[in-house]
Amino acid sequence: MLADKTVQQITHPNLVNTFSDVEAMRSQLNVEGRFKATFEATKSALDIAILEPINVPFPKDAGGGYTHEVHKNNYKLMYDAGIIYQLTKQQKYADFVRDVLVKYAELYPKLSLHPERKSSNPGKLFWQGLNEAVWLVHTIQAYDAVLPALSAEDRQVIEQGALRPVALFLSEESPNTFNKVHNHGTWATCAVGMTGFVLGEDEWVEKSLYGLDKTGTGGFMRQLDELFSPEGYYNEGPYYQRYALMPFVTFAKAIENNQPERKIFEHRGQVLLKAIEATAQLSYAGLFFPINDAIKDKGIDTIELVHGVAIAYGVTKKAGLLGLAQQQNQIILTGDGLKVAKALDANLAQPYQFKTQLFGDGATGKDGAFAVLRTGSESDSSVVTFKATAQGLGHGHFDKLNLSFYDKGREILSDYGAARFLNVEAKFGGRYLPENETYAKQTVAHNTVVVDEISHFDADTDTGNMNHPEVTFFAESDKATIVSAEISTAYKGVKLARTIALIKDGDSDLILDIFDVESKSEHQYDLPFHYEGHFIQANFKYQPELESLTALGQANGYQHLWLKAQAQPKEGLAKLTWLNDNGRFYTLNTLNEEGGEVLFVTTGANDPDFNLRHDNAFILRVDGKRKHQFVSVIEAHGEYNPSKEYTLDSESLITSIEQQKQGSVNLVIIKRARAEDMILAYQTGSAITQSFVIDGQEYTLTKNIELF
Amino acid sequence: MLADKTVQQITHPNLVNTFSDVEAMRSQLNVEGRFKATFEATKSALDIAILEPINVPFPKDAGGGYTHEVHKNNYKLMYDAGIIYQLTKQQKYADFVRDVLVKYAELYPKLSLHPERKSSNPGKLFWQGLNEAVWLVHTIQAYDAVLPALSAEDRQVIEQGALRPVALFLSEESPNTFNKVHNHGTWATCAVGMTGFVLGEDEWVEKSLYGLDKTGTGGFMRQLDELFSPEGYYNEGPYYQRYALMPFVTFAKAIENNQPERKIFEHRGQVLLKAIEATAQLSYAGLFFPINDAIKDKGIDTIELVHGVAIAYGVTKKAGLLGLAQQQNQIILTGDGLKVAKALDANLAQPYQFKTQLFGDGATGKDGAFAVLRTGSESDSSVVTFKATAQGLGHGHFDKLNLSFYDKGREILSDYGAARFLNVEAKFGGRYLPENETYAKQTVAHNTVVVDEISHFDADTDTGNMNHPEVTFFAESDKATIVSAEISTAYKGVKLARTIALIKDGDSDLILDIFDVESKSEHQYDLPFHYEGHFIQANFKYQPELESLTALGQANGYQHLWLKAQAQPKEGLAKLTWLNDNGRFYTLNTLNEEGGEVLFVTTGANDPDFNLRHDNAFILRVDGKRKHQFVSVIEAHGEYNPSKEYTLDSESLITSIEQQKQGSVNLVIIKRARAEDMILAYQTGSAITQSFVIDGQEYTLTKNIELF
Ligand SMILES: [Zn+2]
Ligand SMILES: [Zn+2]
Repeated sequence: MLADKTVQQITHPNLVNTFSDVEAMRSQLNVEGRFKATFEATKSALDIAILEPINVPFPKDAGGGYTHEVHKNNYKLMYDAGIIYQLTKQQKYADFVRDVLVKYAELYPKLSLHPERKSSNPGKLFWQGLNEAVWLVHTIQAYDAVLPALSAEDRQVIEQGALRPVALFLSEESPNTFNKVHNHGTWATCAVGMTGFVLGEDEWVEKSLYGLDKTGTGGFMRQLDELFSPEGYYNEGPYYQRYALMPFVTFAKAIENNQPERKIFEHRGQVLLKAIEATAQLSYAGLFFPINDAIKDKGIDTIELVHGVAIAYGVTKKAGLLGLAQQQNQIILTGDGLKVAKALDANLAQPYQFKTQLFGDGATGKDGAFAVLRTGSESDSSVVTFKATAQGLGHGHFDKLNLSFYDKGREILSDYGAARFLNVEAKFGGRYLPENETYAKQTVAHNTVVVDEISHFDADTDTGNMNHPEVTFFAESDKATIVSAEISTAYKGVKLARTIALIKDGDSDLILDIFDVESKSEHQYDLPFHYEGHFIQANFKYQPELESLTALGQANGYQHLWLKAQAQPKEGLAKLTWLNDNGRFYTLNTLNEEGGEVLFVTTGANDPDFNLRHDNAFILRVDGKRKHQFVSVIEAHGEYNPSKEYTLDSESLITSIEQQKQGSVNLVIIKRARAEDMILAYQTGSAITQSFVIDGQEYTLTKNIELF
Repeated sequence: MLADKTVQQITHPNLVNTFSDVEAMRSQLNVEGRFKATFEATKSALDIAILEPINVPFPKDAGGGYTHEVHKNNYKLMYDAGIIYQLTKQQKYADFVRDVLVKYAELYPKLSLHPERKSSNPGKLFWQGLNEAVWLVHTIQAYDAVLPALSAEDRQVIEQGALRPVALFLSEESPNTFNKVHNHGTWATCAVGMTGFVLGEDEWVEKSLYGLDKTGTGGFMRQLDELFSPEGYYNEGPYYQRYALMPFVTFAKAIENNQPERKIFEHRGQVLLKAIEATAQLSYAGLFFPINDAIKDKGIDTIELVHGVAIAYGVTKKAGLLGLAQQQNQIILTGDGLKVAKALDANLAQPYQFKTQLFGDGATGKDGAFAVLRTGSESDSSVVTFKATAQGLGHGHFDKLNLSFYDKGREILSDYGAARFLNVEAKFGGRYLPENETYAKQTVAHNTVVVDEISHFDADTDTGNMNHPEVTFFAESDKATIVSAEISTAYKGVKLARTIALIKDGDSDLILDIFDVESKSEHQYDLPFHYEGHFIQANFKYQPELESLTALGQANGYQHLWLKAQAQPKEGLAKLTWLNDNGRFYTLNTLNEEGGEVLFVTTGANDPDFNLRHDNAFILRVDGKRKHQFVSVIEAHGEYNPSKEYTLDSESLITSIEQQKQGSVNLVIIKRARAEDMILAYQTGSAITQSFVIDGQEYTLTKNIELF
């Protein structure tokens, strides 16, 4: 009887949607527009789905398998039915949620740990406790929505048989995960905390906010303080950021509705709103930058970010967020979703501004940074990213100082992303493939220096987690943006330092890349450039492998590379040109020293199940060196248009690259055929006025960086 | 003075555009809509271009090179300036054409054959006479447009120095090309004939129509009678068809305007209109089927087909053609272009209907056929093509009975197309690459049987041109379409016969593929399937090559294949599954006999300049056989959606494939997990009513083909 009494004191629904949100939504069901259209589509799909017999199978399969997918589908259907019940007040939707939950209440008490459990965070309904938490996040919202329509007996059965046991399993019985400052912990605290709000269990809410011992060493508030940097960057990178975001914004919205006095969206300089925007900013042409373990198809239209953008719009009413919502092209049936829909219907959207930005990593923002250099504010303006972040835990790659380049809608210099076919049973059960460890995470899979064919931190995540690069310089001006970072811990006794500048001059996009490596002992230094497109030409002779191919190495990712050609170019400017699917040519211009080698490689060796894509790279190699500087300019040029049958500037225009230092002004002079010389000048100290002379002409630098 | 007098008797312009077309266009220049927008865009671009100094360089470079591109650009600018002069009557545009042509009149008499000439059809301004003809086709239209604005002296200089010498060079001085029944000949006859109309040289028109000796053994009328089949199929395939189309429709339109009594568009059952529509029909999702030497980026928005569709619309006023024009999204500044623009502005467009169709090859339509089997009328409804055509001259591939499959917007079982980077100087001067001969044309680059690792006709084009397959059966019903063809001349003493059926049942698309090979002596038979996508799994064990790869063979294309794995599957149903970029899974189900092998290969061996793409294929191989039947079902299934994080039916559903014959009814029974059995019944004779019994149930076939 106690539970019953508590329930009567609580308003329902009151998690993400409140009673007044529901009133507002109900008033719009007959008004033509995006909201009504979404409501009708959701209701139609649901009306078909609920005709099927209810299916709550005994848990058996791992991710992607049958019982896994059925239980996922069940929580999605319950979630939709909860909302449609609130919007229509038709009992059949509440009955559907009840009937499904009664089945779960029968099943759950019989379950021990899932037979396919693999992780340190096992579930019962699912192979991972993570999925169990996601189940409860959805299910408790469905229950909250239909609760007023259920009998006391049904509520008793459902709460005792399913909701309470799941919440207890996720908290008291899984203390490591629940207290963990990690996104699995956030899903658990969100699930349990919201269940606490609905069932009137204040203690559960407290524990969710401050950890099982309520000291604040764990729990949602600690997660909020530590998992995002001050700029809203999430330690594991954007692919996991958008996933981690969901329980953050969901629980925060429920907290805002239940305990507005916490001002949760104001917390830590509005870090949640920054995290939502950072997720959007960490994308190119709609897809997230595929750093760390990331599946490349994920982008800003992901449902988690649709929720995030709606909630952020509800708080800030920024018109730029509507520009994002427009690209997402999806409306959600919540109070904030309604606000977005109405604003879009009223054509209030403004283009979202993508920005050049340095995202500090770590709770203090000082654990290195992820730099995003853009030539414009559109989602597909060309972008260079520079990964000088911390390791990013278990999903992090050994890719310190990695460079990626995107242009005209495509990847040009790429990151492999994760080796995984999500939920494809035949591909290692849909989990991360073995080649994710043996190739995708390894340094050679990236566009950064590998010393002696060994990965950064010797591919040890724990070591990686304890060390990070330092960003030493960041500056922008009209036509050029620059960033420098360095790290001395990736290899014992070797310092890596890289400076990257993105130069925009009319139609010409150039990237200057200066990579310094320094050690007291001699080493082999490899700098791979993984390029997307078809190889066109080199300006030097190379020896191709014609009749047979062999793997380049034995370990650390090298065993997965077929060596296709090698070359010892003459000293001077070596050029490698390729053609991307976007119809543009790209040339890697690099200053080759005596003895420098170039290797042409393709992934696919030692891959018994053909799990890897066939990606191509050039590797710049020097051996037996203490100190070396790789100086390169990546140049976008010309156009290949076989449809209209013309080809422009398929040859690189750059004729020389020269470095100078005058006073404390660093100068890079790039000469080009049929185009003006470019002089990039920068000073890394404070921006003082300095003059310099080139070819008898005097120039004055007043900023940190300028293009002349 | 004679030339002068003649000119005064002729109305100008009167080629593709007539005086009354110009009047109609001028009346629309201030009416908002597509035509005005195109006019303004063309005029703006031209206004900038004509500010540049006129550049008529001495010919030096091959295709893609500098002088080649400049001369191409010149004729395009003159063509535009001619039209804009007619539309605006501003003297500066006429002056521009005059000034350029005066330079050509100075240059041309000094020229001998082009230094880079390679073909049997050399030019003077260009490396190929073909380009010279294209130059004149454009230039004579520009001249026709501005002629009334030029002085008699200028006309004299231009005609004597440039137009007449070029026309004479293309006709009297290049008799082989001019008289040739080939698209190079059509460009020449079009150029010379139109010049004849403009300069009042009736004799040139006659020679253009009936050959230099005016007997009709050569010339445009003969080309029209022989180069297209009765269904409008062009012997070389769609890539060259759209190119060949341009001089046909251009000259035909000029003939219609000058000699309407010829009723040129009615000729041979409206074969020109059929050729225009066939060009459109021979496409998938906007791109031409890449059979023979074809660059895959070419599609229905190609300028040649924009002209074709406009002219066809001018003749027929079919609303479906407007649907094509809408997809082309380009308006031309001609009388017919205006009609299209106005109709699109008035929203008169109807969707263009893509059809299942058998395109007979050759002048009589009996030299084999190209079969296009579609599941729907949209441009991206799934399609199987079956190439049972004649060789297609020098650009033809050795691909008798080749199968290709397209689904959900992508190639699934593909043809390599041409090995060429059009106009990319670094890639073999932009010409067809050596690998076009050594790989792309060879049989093993296709999805058809190779006997003893030798290509059809031993890769001899002349032999190919003398032989072609016979189509033996073609039938369609609601849910299934079927085609059979055979050839006994591709290999001495070996008969190849293939039956392909496309089955559409709800969401399930299946292709049945029965390939019979028969000989009196023992051979090795290979049937490759070149698939697009990522390999997912096989239902049998295979031995992958891990540490090194070697080329599969020595010649006939086999030298370009890396052998990645091989297998000897058990007798029974062997399955190979891959995932296409379109998010769908595809499984090749094939009935494997004892001793059958499967090879996994990738292109790229013996490719010193990295000219080839990395494409993947499975090769089904049997050896030491006289007679063999390859029975396969290609199955589209499931969905991979990593963005929304679900995967459906990644496993093939087919559990058995069985063939029976009852009376003269051929039966194929396909059993599937979680789906109904399919029974495909067909009779190749006339459609009589026949009964058959399966699993005790009686069925009745009344048509040629039916799915039960
Ligand atoms: Zn990576
Ligand atoms: Zn081909």
